[in-house]
Amino acid sequence: MEINLQEVRLEVTEAFWRYVNAIVANDIDAVTQAFWQSPHTLRYGTGENLYGIDEIAAFRNSQRGNRLDLEITRLVITTFGRNYATANCEMRRSDTGGDGRMSHTWVRFADGWRIVAAHVSAAP
Amino acid sequence: MEINLQEVRLEVTEAFWRYVNAIVANDIDAVTQAFWQSPHTLRYGTGENLYGIDEIAAFRNSQRGNRLDLEITRLVITTFGRNYATANCEMRRSDTGGDGRMSHTWVRFADGWRIVAAHVSAAP
Repeated sequence: MEINLQEVRLEVTEAFWRYVNAIVANDIDAVTQAFWQSPHTLRYGTGENLYGIDEIAAFRNSQRGNRLDLEITRLVITTFGRNYATANCEMRRSDTGGDGRMSHTWVRFADGWRIVAAHVSAAP
Repeated sequence: MEINLQEVRLEVTEAFWRYVNAIVANDIDAVTQAFWQSPHTLRYGTGENLYGIDEIAAFRNSQRGNRLDLEITRLVITTFGRNYATANCEMRRSDTGGDGRMSHTWVRFADGWRIVAAHVSAAP
C-alpha cells in the first residue's frame, strides 16, 4: 500500500479545504455534501453525537446563519493507497478564541471523496 | 467498494476489542503495538495531542500502572473493502463515571490491522 501518493494527497487536501471553507462560509449544502450519504456515516461534535447522514444533515440545517471563523493551526493529511485518507488538524476559532481538534476519515467513492467519520473536540 | 464485508468486519471487531482489553488491563506493550509504527500515526487524547508513534509510545509508557475501567456503551464499526475501517464508540469510565467518545481509523498492513489515527474526547 502506497502512503502519501502525491496526486492522491493533493486531491484529499483540496477536499479538506473545500470542507473547511464551506464551514467558514456557512454553506450548509456544501458542508453536508462533503459527508458520505449513508446511515453508517457519523460525526462526534463538541456538543453532539450524530449517527447517520440524516442526523448530520438535520444538525447542519440547525446551524444555518451560524458562521464560524476557523484558523487551522496544524494539519496532517495521510493517504493510504488511492481511496482512503485521514485528515487531522488543530484549529482556533478566531471569533471565540477556542482551540480544538478535528479528525476526518475520508474515502473515495464513485462520486468523489467523502467524509465517512468525523470527530471534533475542544483542545486539551 | 464493498461495505461491511462480514469477515472483514469480524477481524476489525476483534482488533478493536483486543485494543480495549489491553487498555483496561494496562497492557502498555499491546496498546502501543495496536498503532501503526509510523511518524504519520497520530492520537488526539483528552489531555494531549500526540504526533508520531514515538510520542504515542512515550505517552503510553507514562501510563504504566494507571488502569482504566471502560464500558463501551455504543459501538459502530464500518469497513470499506478489505483493508480499511473505522471504529467509533461512546464509552463510560466505570471508575470516574466520565463519559467519552473514541474514534479510530484502522488500516490492514502486512502484519495486521493497526490504528493509524485516533481521537478521544469527553462526551458533550
